[in-house]
Amino acid sequence: MGVNSNRVEHVACLETTVTISSAEVGVMPPPMQIHKVCLPPKLTTLQKLKHRLIEIFFPDDPLYRCKNQTWFKKLIICLQFFFPIFQWGSEYNVSLLKSDVIAGLTIASLAIPQGISYAKLANLPPIVGLYSSFVPPLIYSILGSSRHLAVGPVSIASLVMGSMLSEAVSPTEDQILYLRLAFTATFFAGLFQASLGLLRLGFIIDFLSKATLVGFMAGAAVIVSLQQLKGLLGIVHFTSKMQIIPVVSSVISTKDEWSWQTIFMGFGFLFFLLTARHISNRNPKLFWVSAAAPLTSVILSTLIVFLLKSKVHGIPIIGHLPKGLNPPSLNMLYLSGPHLAVAIKTGIVTGILSLTEGIAVGRTFAALKNYQVDGNKEMMAIGVMNIAGTCSSCYVTTGSFSRSAVSYNAGAQTAVSNIVMASAVLVTLLFLMPLFYYTPNVILAAIIITAVIGLIDYQAALKLWKVDKLDFMACFCSFVGVLFISVPLGLAIAVAVSVFKILLHVTRPNTLILGNIRGTQIYQNLNRYREASRIPSFLILAVESPIYFANSTYLQERILRWVREEEEWVKENNGSALKCVILDMTAVTAIDTSGIDTVCEIKKMLEKRSLTLVLANPVGSVTEKLDQSEITESFGPHGIYLSVGEAVAHISSLWRAQP
Amino acid sequence: MGVNSNRVEHVACLETTVTISSAEVGVMPPPMQIHKVCLPPKLTTLQKLKHRLIEIFFPDDPLYRCKNQTWFKKLIICLQFFFPIFQWGSEYNVSLLKSDVIAGLTIASLAIPQGISYAKLANLPPIVGLYSSFVPPLIYSILGSSRHLAVGPVSIASLVMGSMLSEAVSPTEDQILYLRLAFTATFFAGLFQASLGLLRLGFIIDFLSKATLVGFMAGAAVIVSLQQLKGLLGIVHFTSKMQIIPVVSSVISTKDEWSWQTIFMGFGFLFFLLTARHISNRNPKLFWVSAAAPLTSVILSTLIVFLLKSKVHGIPIIGHLPKGLNPPSLNMLYLSGPHLAVAIKTGIVTGILSLTEGIAVGRTFAALKNYQVDGNKEMMAIGVMNIAGTCSSCYVTTGSFSRSAVSYNAGAQTAVSNIVMASAVLVTLLFLMPLFYYTPNVILAAIIITAVIGLIDYQAALKLWKVDKLDFMACFCSFVGVLFISVPLGLAIAVAVSVFKILLHVTRPNTLILGNIRGTQIYQNLNRYREASRIPSFLILAVESPIYFANSTYLQERILRWVREEEEWVKENNGSALKCVILDMTAVTAIDTSGIDTVCEIKKMLEKRSLTLVLANPVGSVTEKLDQSEITESFGPHGIYLSVGEAVAHISSLWRAQP
Repeated sequence: MGVNSNRVEHVACLETTVTISSAEVGVMPPPMQIHKVCLPPKLTTLQKLKHRLIEIFFPDDPLYRCKNQTWFKKLIICLQFFFPIFQWGSEYNVSLLKSDVIAGLTIASLAIPQGISYAKLANLPPIVGLYSSFVPPLIYSILGSSRHLAVGPVSIASLVMGSMLSEAVSPTEDQILYLRLAFTATFFAGLFQASLGLLRLGFIIDFLSKATLVGFMAGAAVIVSLQQLKGLLGIVHFTSKMQIIPVVSSVISTKDEWSWQTIFMGFGFLFFLLTARHISNRNPKLFWVSAAAPLTSVILSTLIVFLLKSKVHGIPIIGHLPKGLNPPSLNMLYLSGPHLAVAIKTGIVTGILSLTEGIAVGRTFAALKNYQVDGNKEMMAIGVMNIAGTCSSCYVTTGSFSRSAVSYNAGAQTAVSNIVMASAVLVTLLFLMPLFYYTPNVILAAIIITAVIGLIDYQAALKLWKVDKLDFMACFCSFVGVLFISVPLGLAIAVAVSVFKILLHVTRPNTLILGNIRGTQIYQNLNRYREASRIPSFLILAVESPIYFANSTYLQERILRWVREEEEWVKENNGSALKCVILDMTAVTAIDTSGIDTVCEIKKMLEKRSLTLVLANPVGSVTEKLDQSEITESFGPHGIYLSVGEAVAHISSLWRAQP
Repeated sequence: MGVNSNRVEHVACLETTVTISSAEVGVMPPPMQIHKVCLPPKLTTLQKLKHRLIEIFFPDDPLYRCKNQTWFKKLIICLQFFFPIFQWGSEYNVSLLKSDVIAGLTIASLAIPQGISYAKLANLPPIVGLYSSFVPPLIYSILGSSRHLAVGPVSIASLVMGSMLSEAVSPTEDQILYLRLAFTATFFAGLFQASLGLLRLGFIIDFLSKATLVGFMAGAAVIVSLQQLKGLLGIVHFTSKMQIIPVVSSVISTKDEWSWQTIFMGFGFLFFLLTARHISNRNPKLFWVSAAAPLTSVILSTLIVFLLKSKVHGIPIIGHLPKGLNPPSLNMLYLSGPHLAVAIKTGIVTGILSLTEGIAVGRTFAALKNYQVDGNKEMMAIGVMNIAGTCSSCYVTTGSFSRSAVSYNAGAQTAVSNIVMASAVLVTLLFLMPLFYYTPNVILAAIIITAVIGLIDYQAALKLWKVDKLDFMACFCSFVGVLFISVPLGLAIAVAVSVFKILLHVTRPNTLILGNIRGTQIYQNLNRYREASRIPSFLILAVESPIYFANSTYLQERILRWVREEEEWVKENNGSALKCVILDMTAVTAIDTSGIDTVCEIKKMLEKRSLTLVLANPVGSVTEKLDQSEITESFGPHGIYLSVGEAVAHISSLWRAQP
């Protein structure tokens, strides 16, 4: 249970030091010192609990900077802690501002078409996407601890919200109710995120491992791309389901609705966008090519439709968008009624997903620039920004990967880039909305497809397969689950696979036979090190896991099997008879009451076969528990050693003394 | 992934041996040998999978006795494997038979009243309890591998079946349907048990840890005892719910139904039974006192009621019981309809519980007599015996703790004791049934209370509290869950707590600072060993857990905090500046892709602070994964060492050579 400070005084010891001189043993030449195994320092249950809770909730020791400071200084540190803007604000200067303005305008050119597209992905009116690119970035720039995170709607959260809500309410037939549910889900997402941060439960999102996310994003990307075929092919009657089978069959069954003008335009711009992205990927200095491509496509396609409007029909357009700032929307919250459960569920799922993306993206860029992003603080920032968004007609927002990458490449220095972007969106909302009247829907589909196809990281999946088959399983399960079942279930299955992996490792731990590497005190796996050799009459086993209820039966059987195999081997090879089994407990990092019973049981069974069981190097908490359950006494003075080497040396010397 | 055989040839090595002579280093006197870190022997994915599957499903290597045998011998071994009766049958003799007859008759005297009582506990007709004490023991004596297990109905499974089924169907209003559901549940329990055994999934029941079972049995015992107040107080209208609150309120609200004759008789015999048990507990040689007490009470109470029948009214009696052997009941199975789900659920829960009890009891007595009980084989035996029971009007049976203890004390030697007991039950069924006509229900309540009160093991709970607080939590949760919520939910909560404990250990693993114990190559926790001392310029950290997605973020933060604290400590104490961080990976028994990323991340971050990161003693699978993900190269030739001692010695010598 390792203690916080490493300067503690009370250390109790289980055995006294035994020094065996050559005189005592008779034959052995050098005097041998056997070290005692110590109990860890005594702590009361309350102290242990406190230590545990500190490690769970405050592993980063957030108040360490407050130590030895005056009250005034402490106040400033606290203020800086809760509002990072005070940290970098005092050092802000014109040269930083210049970089931030350039980066901010660059993101804005991407954020406006993305905002409109992602809102459509969530089955929301396009204007909501723009609203969501205005208020949340402003809030984040005050509270967020990342300097490069560009905030706004993101594809995954939009997709999940769209799919989960549209299964309960039709977004076309009951628009107002759907909008109310979206705001309510956003509210619960924010509440959930902020409370995770406040309760310092940030580690919950760690359970969505990177492997899971790779599979999930690929699955989601495939589904979203297929969904966009509606816009790309100009289909009017399309399924609202999210699974791959109904979507594909819906695409095929509506073949007569396909419109060639739309298809021509859509694939043309899709090609243009993908080429632009390809260029930027090849040469990161040309990042602006892919950053500017969406806005360029929107402008171009709008112009084309405007010029051809009298000649070509059948290309659906966005149509009228209201001018003006975000209207208040607190009165639209849906806090009682039959759909509340769906809203809460959607809120929690999108909340977790957007948190994961936001924090992962924040950490990525922080690592590149060598600064720290505080997970719990980020959760509060993202949560508060979503709650604030709920009151001003925004839906779920978080740090977006594509936009943050553009922002980073454009040279953003601080969160001021978010403020600049929000200002650009403000200008758009106030004055430029009529320009989007003729923007065709097909261009939004092309922008979405380009964005989500980038989420399919098959190289990461290949690496998972190469390095860790079980991680690949988790990845594959979330991919298939999302594709064929549903987003929340797919995620749940993937998390279950990941947890199962941990449990499997505990349920069936490795046991190894160790041998001595000549001329050293090092004992290593016989199977792995050819220079390691068996010590006659000894069987040295290492258990590579805590001993728990979940593996105690297995370990008992497995250890007895090792002993049986060793005895057979000795018989076949005419070796010297087995007399002592040493359990190397270095990697047994914990034990529970079932584990203690198992150790006793193994000891008894070996004694029935006239074999001695000896433990080597039990860790602190294990030693403590063995002592509390009064097992230590049954092992006697020569039953627990500090290292395998000392155990072998001492027991051999005892044998030589009393043959 | 440790390999089955420890005589494998292909061993690849990551580094070449470096031998530094004194000439090369300049100052250092003795030549120093640095050992290379080897990769484990190369295995294909298929070989690894095979090894994994063998460890999961055949950890006991069940076919090892077939090695190097003729075909005929192999056949006999297989026959003995599937029908243990062939194993001990050939050596059976008269002296063993004598012991078995005595033991069998002793268990029968306990089994008959218990059978009747437990059937009532499951809300079934009393005769079903006797049927269940006849067929299943016969089947078990052929298939079972335990010699001391006495088979029959048990309290916990009866209670759970009674509580789960009576929530769906009233046992008094719809007797036939209830009986059909009970047989169906038994069928599914047997099917479930046999398939677990066949699929060798026996390890699933390991997840019901001993701590969980202690709490569960205590909770169940309290509930059952309170339920028996119906019989003990002579109440007529009683709740069918199983939670403590409705039961207690039902007892109080029916105060006017209490019958003083029943109360007087009930508490009298309860006192008698408890005294008999107390005597046997005090002196195990007097085991027959408690074994004979139930039958004595039944005979005495029946006589009293018979003699007083004209004078005293209001003592409910068992009444007419049909004579004759088990009628066939296969046609009563309920395999389609609205209650099928309940029957399956009940079957699975009672199946798991009765398996756990049966196997635990079997193992306990096998350990006392030093023979092995094969979990998977026992599952098949218990499963088949329940399926056979379904066809002959029996409900769920398993090895009973109380009866097996009596059987063991009475000197049972083989499963023939079960056959003798079944014969005694046969005689009872054929000829003695009318004798039970006047047996009062109150005596059955007293027998049940005596039996279940023995299940409350408060000393075990105290020991759990003393040794392991989280084990105690699991115990407490299952106790409270069973008492206030329901049996399956209580169990589910307890299993969740146990699994949570494993996950908590992985999510927040220990990290320790190690120091050198003077004069040795041993590095131990500075906090625990006062003789351990810091090595200037080095920070040696041990991580006590696999590095997984679930703890990679935490470990990164925690290790950076250790480094920060160490640097502060160095500054305060004017020590020599920190130059190298050694991660002792001995207890890092596994790593996944997130863990590998974390190690890289920590390395990068330390390099930014001009610190070197070095790994010591990575285990086989970790070395393999580091190699596969090409991290090993980034560590270079002086980045991975076989032991902390060699790392310290070699790096210091490098520093001295190039100051």
